[in-house]
Amino acid sequence: MRVADDETSARSFQTKLGQVAAAIDHHFDALLALPDDPRRGLIAAMRHAAIGGGKRLRPLLVVAACDLFHVDPERAMRVGTAIEAIHVYSLIHDDLPCMDDDDMRRGKPTVHKAFDEATAVLAGDSFHALAFEILASEKTHPDPYVRSELVFELARASGHGGMAGGQMMDLAAEIETFDLPTVTRLQQLKTGALIGFCLEAGAIMGKLPIEGRTPLRGYARDIGLAFQIADDILDIEGDEALTGKALHKDENAGKQTFVALMGLDRAREQASALVEQAIGHLGGFGVEADLLRQIAHYVVERDR
Amino acid sequence: MRVADDETSARSFQTKLGQVAAAIDHHFDALLALPDDPRRGLIAAMRHAAIGGGKRLRPLLVVAACDLFHVDPERAMRVGTAIEAIHVYSLIHDDLPCMDDDDMRRGKPTVHKAFDEATAVLAGDSFHALAFEILASEKTHPDPYVRSELVFELARASGHGGMAGGQMMDLAAEIETFDLPTVTRLQQLKTGALIGFCLEAGAIMGKLPIEGRTPLRGYARDIGLAFQIADDILDIEGDEALTGKALHKDENAGKQTFVALMGLDRAREQASALVEQAIGHLGGFGVEADLLRQIAHYVVERDR
Repeated sequence: MRVADDETSARSFQTKLGQVAAAIDHHFDALLALPDDPRRGLIAAMRHAAIGGGKRLRPLLVVAACDLFHVDPERAMRVGTAIEAIHVYSLIHDDLPCMDDDDMRRGKPTVHKAFDEATAVLAGDSFHALAFEILASEKTHPDPYVRSELVFELARASGHGGMAGGQMMDLAAEIETFDLPTVTRLQQLKTGALIGFCLEAGAIMGKLPIEGRTPLRGYARDIGLAFQIADDILDIEGDEALTGKALHKDENAGKQTFVALMGLDRAREQASALVEQAIGHLGGFGVEADLLRQIAHYVVERDR
Repeated sequence: MRVADDETSARSFQTKLGQVAAAIDHHFDALLALPDDPRRGLIAAMRHAAIGGGKRLRPLLVVAACDLFHVDPERAMRVGTAIEAIHVYSLIHDDLPCMDDDDMRRGKPTVHKAFDEATAVLAGDSFHALAFEILASEKTHPDPYVRSELVFELARASGHGGMAGGQMMDLAAEIETFDLPTVTRLQQLKTGALIGFCLEAGAIMGKLPIEGRTPLRGYARDIGLAFQIADDILDIEGDEALTGKALHKDENAGKQTFVALMGLDRAREQASALVEQAIGHLGGFGVEADLLRQIAHYVVERDR
C-alpha cells in the first residue's frame, strides 16, 4: 500500500479540499435562508460564521471515512455539514469575551464583534440544534437506526464528556499547571472527540460492526493528537494572514501546551510519528483509504 | 367528560407534580456524577442549575401526553428529562449578562453568578448535547424510528426556527415595537415550540399517525399562549419569593408583552378562554386526558 505523494496527488488533494469546502458552503446557504422577520440578524450571524472560510477538515474526514464503505456521497456530505455545524458553534462560543476573547476567526471578525454577544450565543445554540436536525433527517439516511446512532455518538462527543468538557479543562489550564497526560486528555476531549466522531460516522453509515472499528479509532486518536500538536506549533510559528486568527495566545497566557511541555523539536517529531502511526492503522485497507492517508499528512503540514 | 376540580383532585395534581419533580432530580443526579478531574466545576454548575427547583412543567406535559397512549412511564420520564435539559440550557444562556442579565433563578443565584460566565456558557452547551444523547439512547425507546423522530422534532423546536429564534425576537422586542401578531409569533417560538414538542413527544412515543395529532397540537398551542400570558401577569403581580426570579423586568424594559398590549383584564380573560379552548381540543379523549386538563388550569392559576 503506497501513499501517493507526488505533485499530481497533492493537486488532487487540494481539489478535493476545495470541492468539500464548496459543498459545505452550498449546504449552509440552502439551510440558512434569510427570513424577513426579527430573526434576520440571527440567521445573518449564522451565515457570517458558517459560509466561506475554514479548512472543512472535519467534513473532509467524514467524506474520506465514508469512501471506505462506498457510502452515498450526498449522505456523507450531510453528515459532514452536521459536524461542521457543531464545530462552528464551538468556535463562536469559544471566541466569546468570557471564553478565549478572540476578535478574528477565519480571517473575519468573530460573530460577537461583527454582531453582538447575545446574537453570538444564540447563533452558536442554533448551530448546535441544527446539527442534530440534519442528522435525524430522513434525507441523511433512510435507516433510522443509522440516524439514531449518529445522533447518540455526536451528542456524546460534543457534551460534558467530550468537547465541552475539554473546553472546560482548557479554561482551567490558564490557571492550573497541567502535566503531559492531563494536556493529552484535555485535547482528546476538546478536539479529539469530534475528530473521532468523523471516522465513527463513516463506520456507522457503512454499517461496520463495532468490533471492526478499532483501526479507524486508532487512526482518529493519532491524527487528533497530531492535529493539536500542529496547532500548538502554528500558534508559535504560524502566519496570522494564513491562519485568519490571532496567534501566540497560548504562549502569552503561559498555558501548558504540547510545545511548552515537549519543546518545539520533540513536538515536531512526535507529530510526524503520530502521522506514521495513524497511517499504519489503515494497513488493512487498499486505495480506498488513500484520502485518509493524505489527510494524515495534511494535518501536520498545513499552514493554517 | 368532566374535569375533576375538587380538593382531592387538586391534592392529587400536587402529588403528581412532586413525583415528576423528584424523578427529574433523580435522573439528573444519576446523569451528572461529579468527576475527579478539571471538568468538576462544569458538572457542579450543571447540578446547580438542574437539580432542585423549577416547576418541571415540560416533563409533566410529556408524562401527561404519554398517559394518553399508555407509554411506559420510565420512557416518558427520560424524554421529560431531555426536554428539561433543553429548558435548563436555555435558562442558563438567557440569564447571561449579554442576554437578560439575571441574578436569580429558581430561588438560587444564576449559574454565571454562582460560578462564572464561561462555565455558564459551557454548562448550557453541555445540557444541549445531553438532551440529544438521552433521546438517541436505546434506553429511551427500543424503536430507532421513534428515537430519530424525537431528535428531529426537538432539534427543530429548539433551533433558529424555534426557541432560539424566539429568544432573538425577544431581544429585538426591547428595541423595536411589536404588534400583537408579532408578540404572539415571538412567544410561539420562544416558549410555544418546546411546549408543542412535549405533546408531540407523547404522540411519537404512542406511535400516533401524523393525521391524528391535530387535537394535541391545538391543545399545545393554546396552553403555550396561556402560559406566556400568565407569565406576563406574574411579572406584574407575582411574588418574587415564590417565582424565585426578578420580576417587573418586562415592564421596566418597556417591552411589548401581552399585558402591555391588551391590558391586565383582557389578558386575564384571554388566558382563561385559551384554557377552555385547550381543554375543548381534548374532547375525543376520556379520563386518560384528565392530567392534561388539570395542567391547562394549572398553567394560568400557578403563583410561580
